[in-house]
Amino acid sequence: MARTATGESSLARAIRILEAFTPEEPELAVSELARRSGLHVATASRIVGQLTEHGLLSRAGDRRVRIGIRMWELASRASPTRSLRDAAMPYLEDLHAVVGHHAQLAVLLGDEVLFLERLSARDAVVNYSRIAGRLPLHISSSGMVFLAYGPGELCERVLERPLERYTAATITTAERLRATLDQVRRQGYALLPGHVHAEATGIAVPVRDGLGEVVAALSVIVPNDERAPSAVPALLAAARGVGRSVPT
Amino acid sequence: MARTATGESSLARAIRILEAFTPEEPELAVSELARRSGLHVATASRIVGQLTEHGLLSRAGDRRVRIGIRMWELASRASPTRSLRDAAMPYLEDLHAVVGHHAQLAVLLGDEVLFLERLSARDAVVNYSRIAGRLPLHISSSGMVFLAYGPGELCERVLERPLERYTAATITTAERLRATLDQVRRQGYALLPGHVHAEATGIAVPVRDGLGEVVAALSVIVPNDERAPSAVPALLAAARGVGRSVPT
Repeated sequence: MARTATGESSLARAIRILEAFTPEEPELAVSELARRSGLHVATASRIVGQLTEHGLLSRAGDRRVRIGIRMWELASRASPTRSLRDAAMPYLEDLHAVVGHHAQLAVLLGDEVLFLERLSARDAVVNYSRIAGRLPLHISSSGMVFLAYGPGELCERVLERPLERYTAATITTAERLRATLDQVRRQGYALLPGHVHAEATGIAVPVRDGLGEVVAALSVIVPNDERAPSAVPALLAAARGVGRSVPT
Repeated sequence: MARTATGESSLARAIRILEAFTPEEPELAVSELARRSGLHVATASRIVGQLTEHGLLSRAGDRRVRIGIRMWELASRASPTRSLRDAAMPYLEDLHAVVGHHAQLAVLLGDEVLFLERLSARDAVVNYSRIAGRLPLHISSSGMVFLAYGPGELCERVLERPLERYTAATITTAERLRATLDQVRRQGYALLPGHVHAEATGIAVPVRDGLGEVVAALSVIVPNDERAPSAVPALLAAARGVGRSVPT
């Protein structure tokens, strides 16, 4: 692939343009895309033209562009997470029907939690996660599951950076993180009252495949009150069902 | 973007590689990717290397590659269909709980039906649709909805090509297609018994946004028997709910 004088490939620049879109700003003007991706407007404009021609971007109103349906189709039809998501969906629906609020499926991607699926009730408690959105590991109950059952290096890497605080309850010290992970391993689930938002409690359990490996986290977000722990048995049972259904 | 002697951009070749993966074959060897995308193995190998480096592809076992989670994340987090899917999901869940079998959400993409979402029971009747999969318009009940309420040119374009037959019941003549579309417009839904598979009936209704425009089709796949039409009222009610919730 051709490289510019800076040594960067044209594909890399196209990817930087695709990376500029966020759930909050799904439509962007070419000038803004150029700014965010650090490209000249003419360069950004040419790459946007090509991505649009192939359907990876589509024109929105007011000279803006957005991710195209074709991009979603290419990414989703042979999605690496499709079999996990298919296995989890019936259990996620049951969990959502029984517990209400939010029921979620997440995987570990790099050093963050990536949410693959979320079912939400209309009047559900506040929740910061989004489908295809990420959260730091130390913040979310799903992240705590990946830290508790993942390799020790993962925890060490997370502790190399400052632990961002979201609420007064957020874990921000190595000592408290390690104590919480011990507790998660002892009890088999993570229950974090008010760590992401004061009004919400996240509860997550590991999903193990046929080989016993933790391949995902199943979680619910419920109101931060004394009834929250009552969701744990349903969550543990659902995770066993998903684990039995997921291909190894 | 640099173009080769053939005039094709490197981005276009990368897209052809991404297009080679299918739901049935989500993992491919580089030599097979080269064959399917009509590229030299060395060229395909170089592009695969770059796509892998950026996480758009990931290495699978046995020297094969597949779509990477990063590709899914980029396509999904600012997905153009996210707001429609979010609006539809609670209604799709209710429909699935009441009707069982398969409940689906689809949009028109080009001259085909693209399925955005599908909820399926474990023991559900056979269904050929897949999430991020496509079906021809004349085959599926959702496609019949888009043909019935879409512009007349769409129907004319579909009739320019032979109408592929899936079963003895499939519509394969212009006369029968036009009569069926009249019926769909009269009754407000499409009910196609055994058109895709002899054992299944597809029923679809239009989802209209606040401006009255048909933006999606909501459908169920149920067994092909005399009880199939009983699903119509629940489907019509759900489509009204989705239509009220979808942003215009």
